[in-house]
Amino acid sequence: MKTYLDCLPCFLNQALRAARIATDDEKKVKEVLDEVGMMLKDIPLESSPPESGRLIYRKVSEITGNGDPFREIKDKSTKNALSLYPSLKSHVEKSDDRLLTAIRIAIAGNVIDFGPDRSFDIEKDTVKTLKKDFIVCDYDRFKDCLDKADEILYIGDNAGECVFDKVLIEEMKKPTIYVVRNTPVINDAIYEDAVKAGIDKVATILSSGTDAPGTVLKTCNSEFMDVYKNSKFIISKGQGNYEALSNEKSPIFFLLTVKCQVIANDIGAVEGNIILKRTDI
Amino acid sequence: MKTYLDCLPCFLNQALRAARIATDDEKKVKEVLDEVGMMLKDIPLESSPPESGRLIYRKVSEITGNGDPFREIKDKSTKNALSLYPSLKSHVEKSDDRLLTAIRIAIAGNVIDFGPDRSFDIEKDTVKTLKKDFIVCDYDRFKDCLDKADEILYIGDNAGECVFDKVLIEEMKKPTIYVVRNTPVINDAIYEDAVKAGIDKVATILSSGTDAPGTVLKTCNSEFMDVYKNSKFIISKGQGNYEALSNEKSPIFFLLTVKCQVIANDIGAVEGNIILKRTDI
Repeated sequence: MKTYLDCLPCFLNQALRAARIATDDEKKVKEVLDEVGMMLKDIPLESSPPESGRLIYRKVSEITGNGDPFREIKDKSTKNALSLYPSLKSHVEKSDDRLLTAIRIAIAGNVIDFGPDRSFDIEKDTVKTLKKDFIVCDYDRFKDCLDKADEILYIGDNAGECVFDKVLIEEMKKPTIYVVRNTPVINDAIYEDAVKAGIDKVATILSSGTDAPGTVLKTCNSEFMDVYKNSKFIISKGQGNYEALSNEKSPIFFLLTVKCQVIANDIGAVEGNIILKRTDI
Repeated sequence: MKTYLDCLPCFLNQALRAARIATDDEKKVKEVLDEVGMMLKDIPLESSPPESGRLIYRKVSEITGNGDPFREIKDKSTKNALSLYPSLKSHVEKSDDRLLTAIRIAIAGNVIDFGPDRSFDIEKDTVKTLKKDFIVCDYDRFKDCLDKADEILYIGDNAGECVFDKVLIEEMKKPTIYVVRNTPVINDAIYEDAVKAGIDKVATILSSGTDAPGTVLKTCNSEFMDVYKNSKFIISKGQGNYEALSNEKSPIFFLLTVKCQVIANDIGAVEGNIILKRTDI
């Protein structure tokens, strides 16, 4: 997905929120905004938002001296999600279509996102998501691809959300490689977040090598790229990965909750909608 | 009121919205964002938001070549407000406290504002405002000052809102000077907007001389400043004027609807609250 003009004020808002979490020093927060303000002119609209997000969150870390502002928030999210795990499993057990319910649960977990300016209540939002209609639902193609796949490449998104992903991975019953960011950016899951969520029990965890808040391929390492290029069935979670991969010609299924107007317009949805969308190839 | 850090992303958002209204040329809109992004570092937090708003909206006009992007919107607002005038008068006629109802109506008109990122329905919002409790209500002091005043200095805010102001001016029954901005900025009322609303029938219209979206005194002309300094009873409408004048030691009554979180925090209110507040002197 390209960068829309509306993304530019959003970048500044994200920088403000992240800087405030990173430091109590208002002068440093102002410095972040000054610097990010000056960076805006260098953002090409042809690039995807996470490409710029990467530089902006780096700037936040550089100026505030805090390389992982969301560490505590991420741990809380994981702890909270783990406490919900038994009830998530029970939803699957009770459902008529276990796989679709597990997909819904994985999408429900995607509300745990500190990028967009949007509050959430994971417990209530999960219940709502289980009842929502999909605005795009390529479920038949998903089942078909899953049946044929020997292996799943599952590109994760946020800490805490990993627990919800685990439910889907368990339901798909195929060897899975679970992809995380290489270094902390917003509340995106890195290796340790996936382990804390218990993903290591159900999948092989692989770092994409990126420090962007989305799988920006040109920032990924060769190990990930080899796996990615050879994958027949890829699951991409969340907005950041959608933004980075929506124009790719790979067999990707995007699972996400729409959390901003720009993505809503890009997909043809409205905020709050849930999506199970196959790349157009 | 000082500029808060949250104002900076808001400035960029306002520039985006205004530029889009001013032109269909996306490159020019991007140029506006680039330039405004670079301006942020020069904004002193000690200044009031309309001081910066002035420079930002000037930049929008300069780059888009459109000196009055909101002209059409302003005319529609006035036309719409004029169609409501009979019902506004009828609310006053039917009320137990005509003056307080007229104040509520003047405050209701303050929702007609294209600065904040907030939609409104003037007809529905007026009905709501008539029933709302004030979060700050210096009504007794207002009545007392009004009784003693020989003349009222009434600082207007937005086009369309002038019609609502007319209802209050008619109810106060004292000679009134109605202040407008000198040149177009957002949808703020200038001389012709006040005339279209019929203000010239009930008050003397005076330009403050400013091109800021608020009465920033150092940008006002000497004619206005002479009147302002000698006024014993000043009414200031809206957020922009509150931001510009809230730290002044003049006998000002602020009448406004709270339309952003920053002002809500500054006043100790929440968005949507209505305010009738005397300056602390």
